[in-house]
Amino acid sequence: MDLSTDFQSWAKSIQQRTEQALDKMLPATSIAPNKLHEAMRYATLGGGKRVRALLAHAAGEFCGANANIIDQSAIAVELIHAYSLVHDDMPCMDDDDLRRGKPSCHKQYDEATALLVGDALQSLAFQILSAANLHKDSQHQLKMINLLAVASGSRGMAGGQAIDLASVGETLSQTELEFMHIHKTGALIRVAALLGGYSGNNFDGSRIALIDHYAQAIGLAFQVVDDILDAEADTATLGKTAGKDANRNKPTYVTILGLVRAKDLAQELYESAIEPLKAHDNEALRLVQLAQFITQRGF
Amino acid sequence: MDLSTDFQSWAKSIQQRTEQALDKMLPATSIAPNKLHEAMRYATLGGGKRVRALLAHAAGEFCGANANIIDQSAIAVELIHAYSLVHDDMPCMDDDDLRRGKPSCHKQYDEATALLVGDALQSLAFQILSAANLHKDSQHQLKMINLLAVASGSRGMAGGQAIDLASVGETLSQTELEFMHIHKTGALIRVAALLGGYSGNNFDGSRIALIDHYAQAIGLAFQVVDDILDAEADTATLGKTAGKDANRNKPTYVTILGLVRAKDLAQELYESAIEPLKAHDNEALRLVQLAQFITQRGF
Repeated sequence: MDLSTDFQSWAKSIQQRTEQALDKMLPATSIAPNKLHEAMRYATLGGGKRVRALLAHAAGEFCGANANIIDQSAIAVELIHAYSLVHDDMPCMDDDDLRRGKPSCHKQYDEATALLVGDALQSLAFQILSAANLHKDSQHQLKMINLLAVASGSRGMAGGQAIDLASVGETLSQTELEFMHIHKTGALIRVAALLGGYSGNNFDGSRIALIDHYAQAIGLAFQVVDDILDAEADTATLGKTAGKDANRNKPTYVTILGLVRAKDLAQELYESAIEPLKAHDNEALRLVQLAQFITQRGF
Repeated sequence: MDLSTDFQSWAKSIQQRTEQALDKMLPATSIAPNKLHEAMRYATLGGGKRVRALLAHAAGEFCGANANIIDQSAIAVELIHAYSLVHDDMPCMDDDDLRRGKPSCHKQYDEATALLVGDALQSLAFQILSAANLHKDSQHQLKMINLLAVASGSRGMAGGQAIDLASVGETLSQTELEFMHIHKTGALIRVAALLGGYSGNNFDGSRIALIDHYAQAIGLAFQVVDDILDAEADTATLGKTAGKDANRNKPTYVTILGLVRAKDLAQELYESAIEPLKAHDNEALRLVQLAQFITQRGF
């Protein structure tokens, strides 16, 4: 990886402010129901690369948004992401005992608590997006809430999970695999960038359309890289049970394309994402760097 | 029960329009992921008294709201309610095989599908409230979304479920039991009425405050009556496994107060709810009738 220290320090500052904003918005463990609030904090704080928050801020900067405003979208999307991991790890889903190197939520607490943690984190995301004044035009803010709801629901992330479940033991084509990932992880990555962009006011030169194109390519690239890492890494490095997709006979980009072509695809998606942004130079700097960070992590 | 045929026919018309609006907003089973959409429809359509929709419409009429606008809030709250039932019935929660006389969602499909059904129904509720133009003032609409998010989350319904779980096998005081129900069922009943009211434009004479007082009393009365019915009814009449709360050693108003005092409490709450509305006469007619319907069903 050859990323400037400038990007590294920007990313670190976003990760820190995201953590602080989440810490502030999650109810304190001293508030009843205490155990639920403790478990919500356990499932959300202190972990992850905060890729969705980074995307929101990179896209927000591109549209001239205030960082404090972007924070609200960034943490709303991170809360939806955190809830999906908690539910996804449950025994009736992926049955995963480890998450970010720690016991997953239902192992640390219990299944009922994990179920409620996910449910309450989703509500909290919409509470945050509807509470603050995110834009001078409230219609615009309603649109942002609607985008997050659609991206989270049955035609977005939750739908992708359902397609994923149905695919276990099936032989999928690359198109079918792509359809699954566009929903399962792509929808939320896309909306993270879109909400970041919508937090701003500079929409010159079809910036939202550029962000949309970028985020869709990066969302897919993210999954291809995940599959590559899952095939290559061992459990210790990854912080979650490695090779589990292959073990459970789940189709991945590596099982369908092989490792070499999967890496080529990640590179192609990266180039497709950043190509239209080159004309914008400095304003799109973080988006370009972030694309590199996402597609080149680990190899 | 001594309710006018006028109220009965009003309630039936609200139930029908709610069913139609839900049918229209739930994705068709022909849309992928088909099984998830089929299960979402299974869990939502064709059942229930639609008490929350009735409350939204009764309160909406009180504030002069258009019925088509109220519909959006009514079905958003009914979707949150439906999701909570799906998750509540799962083995890690109440482990209930029957709901409204039919196999519960995880029995009809599977646990993973039920988990995703609940998740996606919650997203759909916020999608609906953020999509339509519910009020000429968009700030007002943001406030409505925020109210629903708070009522659904860890300091509302989901929090109430957590308190309920923690109470199994415990001896609760009436105050502690009330605290649980104010969250578990009260928050959503309250927000159903509030969103109905907020759908209108006539807020003369502190109508929102009157609705709030009414809904809080009726929400508690609803639970007291539920406990009475659960203690008295048999499985066939109730359409769910009767006496299960007592069997699982869950505290109820009947176990704490006894049957006679529980019935007195329901009556007191009913009177407290409707007393301040008497001055409004005709405009509050549906709220008064509905209070009677809720507190006097079954006895």
